[in-house]
Amino acid sequence: MDYKHEKLFEEKVFKDPVHRYIHVRDKVIWDVIGTREFQRLRRIRQLGTTYLVFHGAEHSRFQHSLGVYEIVRRIIDDGFSGRTEWNDEERLLTLCAALLHDLGHGPFSHAFEKVFTLDHEKFTQEILTGDTEVNEVLRRVSPDFPEKIADVIGKTYPDKLVVSLISSQIDADRMDYLQRDAYYTGVSYGHFDMERILRVMRPAEEQVVIKFSGMHAVEDYIMSRYQMYWQVYFHPVSRSAEVILMKILHRARHLHTSGYRFQHDPIPFKSFFERTIELEDYISLDESVLLTYFQWWRNEKDEILSDLCDRFLNRRLFQYAEFDPATEYRKIGELESLFKEAGIDPEYYLVTDSSSDLPYDFYRPGEENERVPIYLQTPNGELRELSRSSEIVDAISGKRRTDHKIYFPEDRLAANRDDNPLYDKILRMLKG
Amino acid sequence: MDYKHEKLFEEKVFKDPVHRYIHVRDKVIWDVIGTREFQRLRRIRQLGTTYLVFHGAEHSRFQHSLGVYEIVRRIIDDGFSGRTEWNDEERLLTLCAALLHDLGHGPFSHAFEKVFTLDHEKFTQEILTGDTEVNEVLRRVSPDFPEKIADVIGKTYPDKLVVSLISSQIDADRMDYLQRDAYYTGVSYGHFDMERILRVMRPAEEQVVIKFSGMHAVEDYIMSRYQMYWQVYFHPVSRSAEVILMKILHRARHLHTSGYRFQHDPIPFKSFFERTIELEDYISLDESVLLTYFQWWRNEKDEILSDLCDRFLNRRLFQYAEFDPATEYRKIGELESLFKEAGIDPEYYLVTDSSSDLPYDFYRPGEENERVPIYLQTPNGELRELSRSSEIVDAISGKRRTDHKIYFPEDRLAANRDDNPLYDKILRMLKG
Amino acid sequence: MDYKHEKLFEEKVFKDPVHRYIHVRDKVIWDVIGTREFQRLRRIRQLGTTYLVFHGAEHSRFQHSLGVYEIVRRIIDDGFSGRTEWNDEERLLTLCAALLHDLGHGPFSHAFEKVFTLDHEKFTQEILTGDTEVNEVLRRVSPDFPEKIADVIGKTYPDKLVVSLISSQIDADRMDYLQRDAYYTGVSYGHFDMERILRVMRPAEEQVVIKFSGMHAVEDYIMSRYQMYWQVYFHPVSRSAEVILMKILHRARHLHTSGYRFQHDPIPFKSFFERTIELEDYISLDESVLLTYFQWWRNEKDEILSDLCDRFLNRRLFQYAEFDPATEYRKIGELESLFKEAGIDPEYYLVTDSSSDLPYDFYRPGEENERVPIYLQTPNGELRELSRSSEIVDAISGKRRTDHKIYFPEDRLAANRDDNPLYDKILRMLKG
Amino acid sequence: MDYKHEKLFEEKVFKDPVHRYIHVRDKVIWDVIGTREFQRLRRIRQLGTTYLVFHGAEHSRFQHSLGVYEIVRRIIDDGFSGRTEWNDEERLLTLCAALLHDLGHGPFSHAFEKVFTLDHEKFTQEILTGDTEVNEVLRRVSPDFPEKIADVIGKTYPDKLVVSLISSQIDADRMDYLQRDAYYTGVSYGHFDMERILRVMRPAEEQVVIKFSGMHAVEDYIMSRYQMYWQVYFHPVSRSAEVILMKILHRARHLHTSGYRFQHDPIPFKSFFERTIELEDYISLDESVLLTYFQWWRNEKDEILSDLCDRFLNRRLFQYAEFDPATEYRKIGELESLFKEAGIDPEYYLVTDSSSDLPYDFYRPGEENERVPIYLQTPNGELRELSRSSEIVDAISGKRRTDHKIYFPEDRLAANRDDNPLYDKILRMLKG
Repeated sequence: MDYKHEKLFEEKVFKDPVHRYIHVRDKVIWDVIGTREFQRLRRIRQLGTTYLVFHGAEHSRFQHSLGVYEIVRRIIDDGFSGRTEWNDEERLLTLCAALLHDLGHGPFSHAFEKVFTLDHEKFTQEILTGDTEVNEVLRRVSPDFPEKIADVIGKTYPDKLVVSLISSQIDADRMDYLQRDAYYTGVSYGHFDMERILRVMRPAEEQVVIKFSGMHAVEDYIMSRYQMYWQVYFHPVSRSAEVILMKILHRARHLHTSGYRFQHDPIPFKSFFERTIELEDYISLDESVLLTYFQWWRNEKDEILSDLCDRFLNRRLFQYAEFDPATEYRKIGELESLFKEAGIDPEYYLVTDSSSDLPYDFYRPGEENERVPIYLQTPNGELRELSRSSEIVDAISGKRRTDHKIYFPEDRLAANRDDNPLYDKILRMLKG
Repeated sequence: MDYKHEKLFEEKVFKDPVHRYIHVRDKVIWDVIGTREFQRLRRIRQLGTTYLVFHGAEHSRFQHSLGVYEIVRRIIDDGFSGRTEWNDEERLLTLCAALLHDLGHGPFSHAFEKVFTLDHEKFTQEILTGDTEVNEVLRRVSPDFPEKIADVIGKTYPDKLVVSLISSQIDADRMDYLQRDAYYTGVSYGHFDMERILRVMRPAEEQVVIKFSGMHAVEDYIMSRYQMYWQVYFHPVSRSAEVILMKILHRARHLHTSGYRFQHDPIPFKSFFERTIELEDYISLDESVLLTYFQWWRNEKDEILSDLCDRFLNRRLFQYAEFDPATEYRKIGELESLFKEAGIDPEYYLVTDSSSDLPYDFYRPGEENERVPIYLQTPNGELRELSRSSEIVDAISGKRRTDHKIYFPEDRLAANRDDNPLYDKILRMLKG
Repeated sequence: MDYKHEKLFEEKVFKDPVHRYIHVRDKVIWDVIGTREFQRLRRIRQLGTTYLVFHGAEHSRFQHSLGVYEIVRRIIDDGFSGRTEWNDEERLLTLCAALLHDLGHGPFSHAFEKVFTLDHEKFTQEILTGDTEVNEVLRRVSPDFPEKIADVIGKTYPDKLVVSLISSQIDADRMDYLQRDAYYTGVSYGHFDMERILRVMRPAEEQVVIKFSGMHAVEDYIMSRYQMYWQVYFHPVSRSAEVILMKILHRARHLHTSGYRFQHDPIPFKSFFERTIELEDYISLDESVLLTYFQWWRNEKDEILSDLCDRFLNRRLFQYAEFDPATEYRKIGELESLFKEAGIDPEYYLVTDSSSDLPYDFYRPGEENERVPIYLQTPNGELRELSRSSEIVDAISGKRRTDHKIYFPEDRLAANRDDNPLYDKILRMLKG
Repeated sequence: MDYKHEKLFEEKVFKDPVHRYIHVRDKVIWDVIGTREFQRLRRIRQLGTTYLVFHGAEHSRFQHSLGVYEIVRRIIDDGFSGRTEWNDEERLLTLCAALLHDLGHGPFSHAFEKVFTLDHEKFTQEILTGDTEVNEVLRRVSPDFPEKIADVIGKTYPDKLVVSLISSQIDADRMDYLQRDAYYTGVSYGHFDMERILRVMRPAEEQVVIKFSGMHAVEDYIMSRYQMYWQVYFHPVSRSAEVILMKILHRARHLHTSGYRFQHDPIPFKSFFERTIELEDYISLDESVLLTYFQWWRNEKDEILSDLCDRFLNRRLFQYAEFDPATEYRKIGELESLFKEAGIDPEYYLVTDSSSDLPYDFYRPGEENERVPIYLQTPNGELRELSRSSEIVDAISGKRRTDHKIYFPEDRLAANRDDNPLYDKILRMLKG
């Protein structure tokens, strides 16, 4: 039988806390899950450093990827009302794109990407199309199948409806992660009625739209997203850990560049430090490797690297204070001088960080990063942009909210405050 | 103020999916949680290789330890009916023992311990009493405080009531892990009414007993344990991963002993291979380190080591068949010969494994590992052993159930079955 | 279009706390739900007097009936592995039987039936085949359709597989009520993995069998049933309310028969008192009517009727003591004499009640009420009776457990104990 | 011992699906629960006619009242941070007010009150202070205790902090009903983190305020309330049932007033029809009595009464259409004429209904029904009104949203549409 039509002898199921069961019938899907590149996602946490605040959040991108696949599978197989029959290859394409959309994520994704100016989407495409096990599986469907999947994930695939299932303002990705992250952190946000949303999704030409009667379910989903962002994803303590992580990588690169001799040669990092990354270097790097080196670096002679690694591993994080970049930029300058004067390198120990989110956006053509809005379909077939019907969504749509914090080692300053008037001065400036 | 009476300025809470919140008021508890040895538990999974079957089971011993603490804290602080006042130090002792009972677990505990014949309880005691951060915190309470905690965990502490809260057939440890493991795997077993059990626990001289009217809640707990053992903990696929893990460690030790030159020097393992383990070696080893080396060993020239590491990392596990050691020992011998003949080393590729559990045991004095049974307290104050009142518990008590499996690389044999009549013969013998 | 093939223009859904949503596409099902006889089930509680102990248990037979329908619908429509296509009419027949299996239940079913020696299954059949709205709907499918449904419910329908979905030791009825009653009472028993059970159900010739690998899920279901029986259904306080309810009806009948003049003429009860019940009398009687009359009877001059009604409405129930009918029958006789001597009619105020359950039964041909056992299907297709494979089920199977209680108004006796030595004597005898 | 200090020998617990357990230690609370007036709440549904849409919503005011009590008990007994010791009598007063705040609700409260222009709060006060069982219990605490409770419920009690626990924009009443109604209907709205809210509540002089860091939990609670109102409480189908219920009572009163002879004398209603209601009449009337009479009235000769009762009992509700009172008042007049012409009495069969809610209100002094807003307490102790900090709450605060519907018997009109051009005309006007 044709590979793309091949079914497993008996359906396989994965027990999943969020969707109860994840069902696999297609041989291709089963084979993709078994590849080395997909299994690697088990060693990359879904929420990066968040587990240092919400200890339950130790779940990996592996299970999230299966979850996104399952949602898309249900949309397709349980009958997407109104959509004419799915072509078999397009169905498989959509399922694979769902399963593989996060394939290129690196360890502690955002922090890692920032430090080395990488782009996980680019790596997703490279892994799909490069000399990899997953590419080998996908090519058996058809020679251009890997590229097509890359196109769906990169949003350049011509059928925008398929794209919008995987990535839009109400897509399977978000629906899985909101529920999954809520489950593992244990917070009460993150609940919305996905069953209902699946029932009111309708295919329109260019995207998925929502039956008007489902508006409140979508409102609930948007609010859920809003709460998760501010309560979980942007939690200031998890950002503190991220700040430290970035500074560790900065410091290690700096040491490497300046010829420092590490006790353990940082082999897996060299190509990153030197910007000569090969695909295999990237695939081999996971969070285990980082944590292993952090343990080793904790014993390095370089005090900054050693201290930062101890802080990260043993959760001795930086404390934080609010600050307003518009009015307090001078204060930062002043603090930097004081830090230097006190013998604490501000480059590593006085760090500003901003988080910012646009919970929902309507369409502003011409602007960068324009986002396709969510449309409601009225009983007479007309489409209406969500925020025009929902006053709650209207209240938060298009409004970027930003939170600025400054991070610093309060513990160290406070411990020596009495002996050192400079420390005391710094603390008083920072804590107001 | 005396350290042992010191309270945090404001109660700290951890969000926890199982107990909703975990509450910390005592400064000592907060400080213990902040030690390097306790934070290390974040890098050791609660269920070892189980995540390769139940992908949700990625949770660490860190959160389980907090959970056990919280249960004991509730028992003590919410008023253990009938117990006369807790002495402050004894209360703190019990809380610390709850929090620290798993401190000495190594990476992939059971497999690792078996290969290197180690005992995690011994390491718990060493970490508590050795030159460690946690010892430093505990000694501030009183000089013999660390030893006392070690005694509670080692069950040699004189007050058996305290011991039984942490370790008995119905203790805080089991109550936490059954619920927690059920939550993270997503299985429907593992539910029982802990709230009710906490309400019907009564202190007797030597142990915790259960008010008679709570019998059914305890039955439910025992059944829950029974189901979790056979459905989750002894799942044959997770045992397959454990088998491979042990064989990796065997092989690496064998290579090291026989003078093989590794591409990456296995520094963190040397003292284990050579039986010269220092406490620091043990504390530094966590699952990240193992996974990092497995990635490196996957590229070693030694084919066995390389193959086994690939199998573990990429979930290409051994298949299994049932076998009965009583009647089939000859068959094993025969299979071993066939494997050798086929050029597959049976030491690594034909592995028998047995799991065995005693879901509940009544008291059999004089026998090794005698376990204190659960007693029900009738309205007139009399104690009656649980299995005498509960027919369900009676049905399974004292009955050791054992499951024997033989593991082997069916994939490899099947792939070459047609070309190699020996492979075919082996497969037919194994699969019946 | 043929009525039996007619589909609703748009699928209707009912929001259900247990199954999330209940789906209806068939016009026949929709019409059946809309009949007066089915809507009447809203006014009959699923668990009779249990709400007086578990205040959440106020749910009606209406929602349970929908739940059973939904389970059967899923079994049929989601593809019952292995079953050759369902004939359309047989599918509808099975769905209707699921929906209507409790149609003939009267108010506070068991108590009511006992007092008037009625049989709700007989009434289910009469309502299906009599001059009713539901009959009118069903006849439109085919003239013998109502009779066929009655046959399925009465277990005389030739296709035993269809019968076993609705009524066997592992049927949709039990699967719904265990989960639903657990949900509404709030107890932690009653959970089992129905999703898994639905996946391992296989059609055999005469009944549904279970794939061997699903054994533990079935064990869990059996244990769940066992716990629900003893923790919820046979709760002694709810039985106390049932005892009082029966005595109210006894007393009212007795008064009617002996020519007592009620202040409110007990019109709806007359045909029950006089054994001249018409179908319409039965259909009109629901729990509202009983509760209304109980309020009125609470003001009747007859002290016994008035007192019992006050007790029922205001939850002033009888207390209870254990007793052993085998050895204590003399004591009962003695107590009856003492009650009479004390001026308390033992017929109404000294009541023995026994509850008894057979949690699971294997096949004992020839015995009355023989129950079809649950069979497991081994990988090679052989059928094995459940208790031969499961030691837990074996432990409780075939063992009838009985609980005997004696109910009496302790409040009344205790209030006058000091003034009345007889009361004191009675209390001492009863409370041991 | 003093009655108000009297404790039960052993704490009593009620199993509750929402709060797990409800705990009672105080003898007074236990006695209040046992009174006839409190037990009567078992026969009044929490959500009136909502069970005709959400079939799970069959729960009574009895359980809601216990739930509100439990929340307040936890606030008081688990230590309301910052509140100086509670005086014993004030504690009991607050608990009783929580338990009894809904005591005066009649059957199908809102509909019933509207028809007979009654006020359930007035009845709550009358029951508390009148010749009732509950008054007898409360007076034993102190002679003015019943009046004080009435004052708390009526918001005239001097200690506004006590009042605000029972009734404010974030009170125990709302926190219980949102969660409880969500649980029983099965909707996914209604979840918020009550545990967190309880932890961030702080007593201020005049009311409960919220620690600033708890803002997002309060936002979630407000959104939950918003969604429950529009998704559940104002569901148009449940309003249809309410419309019919009101029309039944209107018709019955009209018939009684105009001398119609009922087959069953409507004794329990007479004093309501004639406005001569005694307290006992009110207490005796519950939903069972209404449903009993509706069954009888279904067989009355008066066609309107009979039809409306059949519609209510058997869920043959009116259909509805949107309408805008501002612009379509003429259309209503026209429709009324057409209805009359068609021989359908518009007074009973063409009914407009409006639902309106103010999800959260800030303070507008001087306006009627001014509502005390929710205040956040910043770290420096300052109070800030919620909507000034939360953009989501700001979006919906102070904005009254209203929904207008017109209800009519589409079934009847449609059934005869082809024969009757008037019916057709009416339908076309109504359905647009």
